[in-house]
Amino acid sequence: MSLPVGATIGILGGGQLGRMLASAAAKLGFRTIVFAPGEGLPAAQTASQHMDADYLNTRALQAFAAACEVVTLEWENVPVAALDVITAAGTDVRPGKTALDVAQDRASEKRFLESIDIACAPWREVDSLADLKGAIEEVGPDAILKTRRDGYDGKGQVRLKAGDDLNAAWESLKGAPAIIEGLVPFEVEISIVLARGMGGEIATYPVPRNHHAGGILRRCEVPANVSSATRAEAVDKARRLADALEYVGVLALEFFVLADGSLLANEFAPRVHNSGHWTPEACLTGQFENQIRAVAGWPLGPTDLLAPAEMDNLIGEDAQAPLSDLLQRGSLTLYGKGEIRPGRKMGHVVRLLRD
Amino acid sequence: MSLPVGATIGILGGGQLGRMLASAAAKLGFRTIVFAPGEGLPAAQTASQHMDADYLNTRALQAFAAACEVVTLEWENVPVAALDVITAAGTDVRPGKTALDVAQDRASEKRFLESIDIACAPWREVDSLADLKGAIEEVGPDAILKTRRDGYDGKGQVRLKAGDDLNAAWESLKGAPAIIEGLVPFEVEISIVLARGMGGEIATYPVPRNHHAGGILRRCEVPANVSSATRAEAVDKARRLADALEYVGVLALEFFVLADGSLLANEFAPRVHNSGHWTPEACLTGQFENQIRAVAGWPLGPTDLLAPAEMDNLIGEDAQAPLSDLLQRGSLTLYGKGEIRPGRKMGHVVRLLRD
Repeated sequence: MSLPVGATIGILGGGQLGRMLASAAAKLGFRTIVFAPGEGLPAAQTASQHMDADYLNTRALQAFAAACEVVTLEWENVPVAALDVITAAGTDVRPGKTALDVAQDRASEKRFLESIDIACAPWREVDSLADLKGAIEEVGPDAILKTRRDGYDGKGQVRLKAGDDLNAAWESLKGAPAIIEGLVPFEVEISIVLARGMGGEIATYPVPRNHHAGGILRRCEVPANVSSATRAEAVDKARRLADALEYVGVLALEFFVLADGSLLANEFAPRVHNSGHWTPEACLTGQFENQIRAVAGWPLGPTDLLAPAEMDNLIGEDAQAPLSDLLQRGSLTLYGKGEIRPGRKMGHVVRLLRD
Repeated sequence: MSLPVGATIGILGGGQLGRMLASAAAKLGFRTIVFAPGEGLPAAQTASQHMDADYLNTRALQAFAAACEVVTLEWENVPVAALDVITAAGTDVRPGKTALDVAQDRASEKRFLESIDIACAPWREVDSLADLKGAIEEVGPDAILKTRRDGYDGKGQVRLKAGDDLNAAWESLKGAPAIIEGLVPFEVEISIVLARGMGGEIATYPVPRNHHAGGILRRCEVPANVSSATRAEAVDKARRLADALEYVGVLALEFFVLADGSLLANEFAPRVHNSGHWTPEACLTGQFENQIRAVAGWPLGPTDLLAPAEMDNLIGEDAQAPLSDLLQRGSLTLYGKGEIRPGRKMGHVVRLLRD
């Protein structure tokens, strides 16, 4: 059932993704309400309305549900209990609870991927120091210890090398359930960003090559220089994931590409994704608009690439460069965050590479 | 003096132009306050804040001025007295009073254009029925009678042909000071949309061919099929106008192109313009972003055309077409207006024509 023009779309989460979703929704004539605790949030600045309440505030969630024709999200760590309240109040949340449930726990995420034949790098659950010592034997000493929940942009992660003090690494997680992933010798990282509509139709974006540093995405180059077979396999896997989750909206699935062209999945995000931030400038329809179209039950827009493109994140002090330098680099997007902090995503720049 | 990231830009006027300006400002990290009387206005839905007050409410204007680092406008008929209050309160308005003063009166507009050697179609001031009868003798019977002030989208205009009842035409304007323009046998209509920065630098957009019906813009085709000499002359005239007004921001100057390629100016708008609505999709930097950059004192963005484009306005019942049809036609923008009325601009569609 598709939303009428002028309907109100709720957005759970108040960051830059919600900010760009709200602007995309406005382009299509929708109103938006951002539900997120805090003041002066990036998304609150572009939404029609902001409800400043905790994600577990039942009464506020019910009022939010009553004011919205449909609810979507910009943050995968919204408590699933919030989705239950909204759904019980009679308003659909797209994507739904299943995708969040799976994505919020790195162990269930990897199990889900493997259950639909999407291979991941070797990994083990780690609930104790003893688990960690045993797992290292299996996945190898070059590994990353990650909390199962609530990590992002390299937070909640410890990089391990041979000879490292496993005790200290384990202590640093403060007893949080974790997984360990063996590092794989990949050539490049890519991601598939796709939109899946309410009728199951899928629109996939051109494939970016992603460059990370310190666990944070720094740069995308589109199209990635990978073989058409590798690209087709990655797209096929991402479509399989979206179908298996009966997904509605935009999702991103990240891959390591090994020297032989084979793929290992890293993780997926049940939302618009930083590795798709070049799409508004470089494609006929950006990821934010397609997320809105999908959750509104509208037809998806074409994702054709207008020109090869590069996207650079502005992280922390990157945003302190002279404005003229930033503007010189391409189309600038800033997120309306007041304080520059190390590792904080402040904006991004997209450059189209024309003939 | 350029605005810092995160500054607040005021926008006088609450329509779709303000709506798109506020979204463009948000992309660059600015906050916006829309000042306009009324509820649920298109621009209020995308701005950070809305001040609902009359344009002659001095106290409200002073509060607005105090809350904004700079003020711009999306409607040329904002009373210049409002600009005086804001400026007296210490906040610059860009573009300034001169451009508005000239543009708000069709007679002073044409006199200004002619004073800088920009030829217009033949015209006369008309303040009485006797004036009208005399003027018709001079400009010819095929003419348009227009109120000097407050007309837009064909409102306040009467089309005259040989044998028409001049008395009835004059009565219909209810005594408002008017002008009469002789119709010229033009081949096509074009417009020059340009941005002029605080240092006087100018960025001009590719030239659209504009199709009007009933005094309302219906369609743009870019680039217009006119000779390079005609294009260069039109650009030169628009630059001359912007320089003469010491203009800051985006303006549009409309022309009739005659069979011999010569140009007659129609009118100019001291603001972003409907004939530039294809620029966000089709150019590296859209007109709304360049307006924001100009009034913020930031460098202007490049205006290169990514692909030939067509823009169709959705006027009145055009917006009642099935959604799937509208989306099929290209990139859809809707203005968040609740009620569809005949002649009301509801949105537009931009189609890129790729090789």
